[in-house]
Amino acid sequence: MQSDEMPWRWFVEHQTPYTSIIHKVKRIIYSGKTEYQQVDIIETYDLGICLVLDGKVQSSTKDEWIYHETLVHPTLFTHPKPKNVLIIGGGEGATAREVLKHKCVEKAIMIDIDKQVVELSKKYLREICENVFEDPRLELIFTDGRKFVEKTSTTFDIAIIDVTDPLSGGPSYLLYTKEFYEKLYQRLSDDGILATQATSTFYSIDCFLAIYNTLSKVFNIVKAAHVWIPSFASTWGFVIGSKKYDPEELEIEYLEEKIKERKITNLKFYTPKIHKSVFVLPPHIERRLKEENRIIRDEQPIFMPA
Amino acid sequence: MQSDEMPWRWFVEHQTPYTSIIHKVKRIIYSGKTEYQQVDIIETYDLGICLVLDGKVQSSTKDEWIYHETLVHPTLFTHPKPKNVLIIGGGEGATAREVLKHKCVEKAIMIDIDKQVVELSKKYLREICENVFEDPRLELIFTDGRKFVEKTSTTFDIAIIDVTDPLSGGPSYLLYTKEFYEKLYQRLSDDGILATQATSTFYSIDCFLAIYNTLSKVFNIVKAAHVWIPSFASTWGFVIGSKKYDPEELEIEYLEEKIKERKITNLKFYTPKIHKSVFVLPPHIERRLKEENRIIRDEQPIFMPA
Amino acid sequence: MQSDEMPWRWFVEHQTPYTSIIHKVKRIIYSGKTEYQQVDIIETYDLGICLVLDGKVQSSTKDEWIYHETLVHPTLFTHPKPKNVLIIGGGEGATAREVLKHKCVEKAIMIDIDKQVVELSKKYLREICENVFEDPRLELIFTDGRKFVEKTSTTFDIAIIDVTDPLSGGPSYLLYTKEFYEKLYQRLSDDGILATQATSTFYSIDCFLAIYNTLSKVFNIVKAAHVWIPSFASTWGFVIGSKKYDPEELEIEYLEEKIKERKITNLKFYTPKIHKSVFVLPPHIERRLKEENRIIRDEQPIFMPA
Amino acid sequence: MQSDEMPWRWFVEHQTPYTSIIHKVKRIIYSGKTEYQQVDIIETYDLGICLVLDGKVQSSTKDEWIYHETLVHPTLFTHPKPKNVLIIGGGEGATAREVLKHKCVEKAIMIDIDKQVVELSKKYLREICENVFEDPRLELIFTDGRKFVEKTSTTFDIAIIDVTDPLSGGPSYLLYTKEFYEKLYQRLSDDGILATQATSTFYSIDCFLAIYNTLSKVFNIVKAAHVWIPSFASTWGFVIGSKKYDPEELEIEYLEEKIKERKITNLKFYTPKIHKSVFVLPPHIERRLKEENRIIRDEQPIFMPA
Repeated sequence: MQSDEMPWRWFVEHQTPYTSIIHKVKRIIYSGKTEYQQVDIIETYDLGICLVLDGKVQSSTKDEWIYHETLVHPTLFTHPKPKNVLIIGGGEGATAREVLKHKCVEKAIMIDIDKQVVELSKKYLREICENVFEDPRLELIFTDGRKFVEKTSTTFDIAIIDVTDPLSGGPSYLLYTKEFYEKLYQRLSDDGILATQATSTFYSIDCFLAIYNTLSKVFNIVKAAHVWIPSFASTWGFVIGSKKYDPEELEIEYLEEKIKERKITNLKFYTPKIHKSVFVLPPHIERRLKEENRIIRDEQPIFMPA
Repeated sequence: MQSDEMPWRWFVEHQTPYTSIIHKVKRIIYSGKTEYQQVDIIETYDLGICLVLDGKVQSSTKDEWIYHETLVHPTLFTHPKPKNVLIIGGGEGATAREVLKHKCVEKAIMIDIDKQVVELSKKYLREICENVFEDPRLELIFTDGRKFVEKTSTTFDIAIIDVTDPLSGGPSYLLYTKEFYEKLYQRLSDDGILATQATSTFYSIDCFLAIYNTLSKVFNIVKAAHVWIPSFASTWGFVIGSKKYDPEELEIEYLEEKIKERKITNLKFYTPKIHKSVFVLPPHIERRLKEENRIIRDEQPIFMPA
Repeated sequence: MQSDEMPWRWFVEHQTPYTSIIHKVKRIIYSGKTEYQQVDIIETYDLGICLVLDGKVQSSTKDEWIYHETLVHPTLFTHPKPKNVLIIGGGEGATAREVLKHKCVEKAIMIDIDKQVVELSKKYLREICENVFEDPRLELIFTDGRKFVEKTSTTFDIAIIDVTDPLSGGPSYLLYTKEFYEKLYQRLSDDGILATQATSTFYSIDCFLAIYNTLSKVFNIVKAAHVWIPSFASTWGFVIGSKKYDPEELEIEYLEEKIKERKITNLKFYTPKIHKSVFVLPPHIERRLKEENRIIRDEQPIFMPA
Repeated sequence: MQSDEMPWRWFVEHQTPYTSIIHKVKRIIYSGKTEYQQVDIIETYDLGICLVLDGKVQSSTKDEWIYHETLVHPTLFTHPKPKNVLIIGGGEGATAREVLKHKCVEKAIMIDIDKQVVELSKKYLREICENVFEDPRLELIFTDGRKFVEKTSTTFDIAIIDVTDPLSGGPSYLLYTKEFYEKLYQRLSDDGILATQATSTFYSIDCFLAIYNTLSKVFNIVKAAHVWIPSFASTWGFVIGSKKYDPEELEIEYLEEKIKERKITNLKFYTPKIHKSVFVLPPHIERRLKEENRIIRDEQPIFMPA
């Protein structure tokens, strides 16, 4: 049988209309449509099990921890003692998993629009969300992230935005606008910090730059980070907006101390040295960050290159 | 959302290591492993719903009737009054469907090794097997076709072999050997006829030629036919072995008469003219049929090009 | 080296936006742009050397003779004694090659818009056009086929149209209109016959049907034929328009006689039996030919599905 | 015409048998075979013009400077005053270009096995090697790098190894063995430094680890670096072996000083901060570097995963 030699089911991730990645598929675990998006859970040969939303890999067992640790820890360690954390998106539970590793966190509210994605993750992505949804500190609310932020009166120390890329017609593009960031700013404590995924720094660098510039109009400290995610076939951007503390100023010794203090022993990617290095962007990107002047607005959203 | 514009799930049928067909997938209806093979039921844009076994399209709603009518009717019309028909394979029910259109058929025994394929077809391929498995003339037995033929003492007027291609390690390659054809010959009545699918006349012409030559060592009348099947991206071969009647000698008027006599009104592809034309092979293939000398044996089976 | 095991250069022929054929490439022989089109000459593993114009295989050494013999011979044998033949298109010389096999042909005028394609064929496709362009009966004129037909006062017994598919923006779509066929009709002798390639009968069946219907408004005898061309991954359509003789009425014995009379000994595909069978279309296509009512006009051209 | 919408020429880079990158091709500039390898020079939409050897992108105009600056500058700045530099490979001239930016370099000897690659680069990759081959400090010798090292009696301050990946049957695998590194060690001055490309840290991490470990048996200071190269669809590894100076100990201020001192004003990627960050590997790779025990030998070479 040809199964392993010439696999016939290919998952093709289109980076642009001209560049795509072929992942040959070992097994299709689930495929279906929720109210909000197409969900495929597939097993590949090189990336393990992948959660795919609307044709984009969101998490793979091979490397989701690179993405999620880089999204969460630089921000949570920048805050001296985060107690209340808001997570928007992150349906497969991995962002919550990383947040809850910080023992100082007393309460994490996770907002996801798509209940089915969470249910499917619990069923098929156990390896990723083991024990996460059972943690009593986690509260799960199924609603639109934007609506939640506009209505809530809770104050958070940290907000982590882990939503899908801004696609035209997709469920997430209004979670990247100045109006949204301003609302969120108001819900953060005086030393609050926001971190958002910020798309590819190569294939969609315009999105990345615009997110950075938009956040810089709302927060006084704004920092961009990046890391290579094999599953995304690109270095991936993150932007941190902070009211008081600067993530780049933290010293290696301080971070080592904090890791011990918060009793975190199960990090796979994040280290104090990695903390320092993710903020080092190449000069051609640094330059473009400085020159960028687009501001993403509700009326003028930004979309991924089609 | 990109769903329809740049579909990310591709089904790739490998014709050879150097030529493949990409079918972009609209919907994955089912994907799983049975005891015998990998089964995928997918909806494509150009071929409708496809049943895929071990990575090979077996039937698509777009054109399965071209394949099944060509496999069944030239043979059943060649026999003046077929009453007992043996079908080996044909799990999705379409071969039985065509056989049962002949009102003279009193009994059809269908042998399939894989009960799950039949169950999945009943559930997901209703369009193909509507009312077939409910026909009281049809008896369904789940066992190995070879074993059944070796053990049964029943005599059949017709045997239709509709099994997957002879793949190394696959479930079907022993249903293409001289030993098997000899056993089956003994189970046919004195005017009995056998028809088998015989793989691509282009991509696996060696298989096609060897099946023809092997049958010619067992039956005194042997005829090759072919027709283009869009889903198979090739002209497809069929070989008929007959004890008494020659399918090529039937006249158009005779066939028109027979269609009326058997009260068949729902043919989509087969006509008396088509009957004549499927036996017209191009001269380069005719020549190779004459020159072929390989005989497929249990000890020397033939396999599709990997 | 991985060259043969995992070839990295793929030629992908898009049948529709949802179905494509991958040909792995052994060697790129030529790649460049002429004034009219993109020309690639590549060697593949399964089709031999291919001439590709604007991304569509036009001819491959593996099977170009199936296409060209089916385009030319049914028409040339239908005419009792063709002396003057017009060929529009056919830059690689294969249509002329088949035409010139008929010893009765005294003069063939071949019109191609793209001189470079002819030059490249002479250089790289020797196997296809050996001795063709050297035949003194052949006159080669580089101009637009439409313009030539509108200006010439020559009368032809036969016109063969072997141009690229009607693509929006491409060089050929005005060679498929009623206006063009009417002009050409006037240039044919009283027993003149026209044959044109008519695209895929599967992937672009609407084009095929419309070409047939358009010709039926101009000629009193119109016949459709088809044959599977491996390189085109489809059965391919041809339409013949005739003033006097009907290609379907020719008997096998007559055709055998004619082949001898014209001293043609080097046919690879065409036989009298093939002549008969190429006109047998399946009933679902026959039905649609009868129902078709679109007429292709200069103002309302038809294009291939994008 | 479909050219830009659905390009039909795809360059597919196979990372593993299960993961590949599709680059749609705008233009094929050159394709041919040299004595040593298959050379394709293509223009893609997202990576610009690419030099492809045996199916692997070696350099693209979009990002070759990321690769070449990371290969060259961390090493050349680690040496206080490099005068004599040996370059093995680097046929397109970009490694030499970076080396020659250091004004202190008095002589660079570049050894490449394939004269034709250099000739083709001069002709088609002007953008990459502008003014490089004209620099009087550069001496170009066409021979096997291994043979040159074994025969020469010259002493070098720096050796840069910029050869193709170790492929079975390819021209480069004997340039990654302990025996070769030992010969090269003898040709380096007492404070000499060697840098080699070390393949993907993801798709071929075993090669990367083994190169590191092998060099650690020859040099007393060995450091691994990595950077994401879009054209290679991966973070790429580099290993530095040094007799005296440690590239990780250089301070940012020192490097700033050195850049000024050597009057280098045209760096596009390398900065002192980048210098520091390329040596920060994630902990899962750090751990594997420590545990690695394979030594690459002439008799036991290492090859890329097929």
